[in-house]
Amino acid sequence: MKIKIVRSILEANDRIAEENRLLFKEKGLFVVNLMSGPGAGKTSVLVETIKRLKEKGVQSAVIEGDIEGTEDADRISALEVPVVQINTGGACHLDANMVRQAVQDLELNGAKILFIENVGNLVCPAEFYVGEDMKVMVLSVTEGEDKPTKYPLMFRESKTLLINKIDLLPYLDLDLEKLKNTASKINPSLKMFDISCKTGKGIDKWVDYLLEFIN
Amino acid sequence: MKIKIVRSILEANDRIAEENRLLFKEKGLFVVNLMSGPGAGKTSVLVETIKRLKEKGVQSAVIEGDIEGTEDADRISALEVPVVQINTGGACHLDANMVRQAVQDLELNGAKILFIENVGNLVCPAEFYVGEDMKVMVLSVTEGEDKPTKYPLMFRESKTLLINKIDLLPYLDLDLEKLKNTASKINPSLKMFDISCKTGKGIDKWVDYLLEFIN
Repeated sequence: MKIKIVRSILEANDRIAEENRLLFKEKGLFVVNLMSGPGAGKTSVLVETIKRLKEKGVQSAVIEGDIEGTEDADRISALEVPVVQINTGGACHLDANMVRQAVQDLELNGAKILFIENVGNLVCPAEFYVGEDMKVMVLSVTEGEDKPTKYPLMFRESKTLLINKIDLLPYLDLDLEKLKNTASKINPSLKMFDISCKTGKGIDKWVDYLLEFIN
Repeated sequence: MKIKIVRSILEANDRIAEENRLLFKEKGLFVVNLMSGPGAGKTSVLVETIKRLKEKGVQSAVIEGDIEGTEDADRISALEVPVVQINTGGACHLDANMVRQAVQDLELNGAKILFIENVGNLVCPAEFYVGEDMKVMVLSVTEGEDKPTKYPLMFRESKTLLINKIDLLPYLDLDLEKLKNTASKINPSLKMFDISCKTGKGIDKWVDYLLEFIN
């Protein structure tokens, strides 16, 4: 019975997500669903990415998902890009309907790329397609090398993995190669970038890769 | 309608949790529900805590909650304490029924304290009472000072907050006092400890505090 309810929720979600996808296509938007556990650095990744895209003449727009608060939206709007905050009021992920509502409030101002920053959670966001073109996962090196085995769905669903905070590697016991090998076993086509939002290392490479998807 | 379903799930959960609580009481167990986001160091906290409790003559038992895998249970069983693994198979939190099943498989061997390591998630675990005496939250300093505002329920529900990985503070821009002030505003009675599982700093203080609750 419980499974049946969950399935019907996911089916309803997918129908709305498909409508979102068509709307995004119509508007010429490439859409990234950005996911991670709490504090892995999604907003910092956005800040660094949006700045560099702007330098290359590509304007971004952002939907910020948080249970409560507007800190991230405030950080993003300082970059002078259109941003809408979704407060889920308890829900642990964004769903297609929340995104649909948010898009209606978003002034695109010529944006070519829309970033949807999901709620910080390595589990549930991976289950909900919201109409995006690409799921991007951020993992902080401080989280340890066992995460792919423990949270396989998110690693499986993501097209790209940003391994963040590599400036902290000298102070950790992390085996970065082991982490990457485990992630590759779970998702052999996962594209990985080592980055540090603090030092800027690796960000240009990631942005160049992203630009390949934008017209 | 959706709210009604969720409420009935939570009510059913609370009934079983109450049964768990009575069972724990009968067995003379103090029960800790250990929660955090992914990679904040719950298992390392357990390893350091269990070792020190053993030195003081207090035996522990552990229920390990993970979506998949047995890495954490393997680390814990190396300490020669009774441990049972729950694999939630996708679910993002432990509920009272899962804990009830696991307790049936647990050989207590004179344990006075039971640690329930929840799924790494700052959202959903806080909603599910499993019959524990104390909710303890672990937060890594690498996660940033904005977590109390973004995940208020977990901070509100927890009795104790272990601020972990303080050995990394010199390499971060974290304002530890600001973090604590924000957490205190959300939960004025929250007891906080600064700890490092790597250097051992602060662990004895936390264990002394924990011992006050154990007969």
